[in-house]
Amino acid sequence: MSNHLPPFTLQPIGKIWTGFKSREECPRNSRFNKNQSIIEVDPAYADAFLGLEVGRHIAVLYWFDKADRTKLQTTPPNADKLYGVFTTRSPHRPNPIALSAVEILAIDGTKLTVSGLDCIDGTPLLDIKIYVPMIDAPQDALTSLPWSNKP
Amino acid sequence: MSNHLPPFTLQPIGKIWTGFKSREECPRNSRFNKNQSIIEVDPAYADAFLGLEVGRHIAVLYWFDKADRTKLQTTPPNADKLYGVFTTRSPHRPNPIALSAVEILAIDGTKLTVSGLDCIDGTPLLDIKIYVPMIDAPQDALTSLPWSNKP
Repeated sequence: MSNHLPPFTLQPIGKIWTGFKSREECPRNSRFNKNQSIIEVDPAYADAFLGLEVGRHIAVLYWFDKADRTKLQTTPPNADKLYGVFTTRSPHRPNPIALSAVEILAIDGTKLTVSGLDCIDGTPLLDIKIYVPMIDAPQDALTSLPWSNKP
Repeated sequence: MSNHLPPFTLQPIGKIWTGFKSREECPRNSRFNKNQSIIEVDPAYADAFLGLEVGRHIAVLYWFDKADRTKLQTTPPNADKLYGVFTTRSPHRPNPIALSAVEILAIDGTKLTVSGLDCIDGTPLLDIKIYVPMIDAPQDALTSLPWSNKP
């Protein structure tokens, strides 16, 4: 079916700076990075920042450009067997779009200082969206990871 | 800066079926759709489903292929002035990737029945990720929309 679907083109709008120089240095997930990160957006997109405020959370979408897009299964950290990549947060997936919700700590033109992200320096930025619990945080979601409550 | 960043290619992995035939029929956000939607994934990606279960929430990423990618500001519903698109959830943005967290209600091969989505029939699917509050729902996020608490 997807063979009949035309591809789309992503144009990166900036870069992310975390201080991590290799994938091995990166935390497993943004919530484990207690340092600050920088989101540097092309000044051409300055108008898209109108109304962003310090203290707000944003959903940041970025591109794991070193991912293996052919990998469909993986063994997550702390799991003891394979899971499909759709059941995980692995960077390896057909379209390696990464997603993290972070807090805006400072705004300087089109440069945002945010709470810690999980990617290497220079990772391409795709999108920024306001994060609001009533949109993004369903109240009835299970709190465990799929493999954390398995025998 | 982004002029120096190479583009990337998204390959849609399936389609979304909501029953909405035009953008005018679509709810403003997935949380307003109380009906069920169908996510139909190319069977080539069947291995990526291993471990997905009914009752789990997933983050669904899809592509608003009718969006205006040049639009950088918009007046959100219920707002009375312009905001930058990064401050909103508008489908119009440089890379129109849509994001919704929904619940898996049924699984039939590579076809998922999920809680309601907000897009028109045939919208291209990009990615599915497990949704877990400890990763996706920061506890200290402001609960209001940027324009809902403004004079």
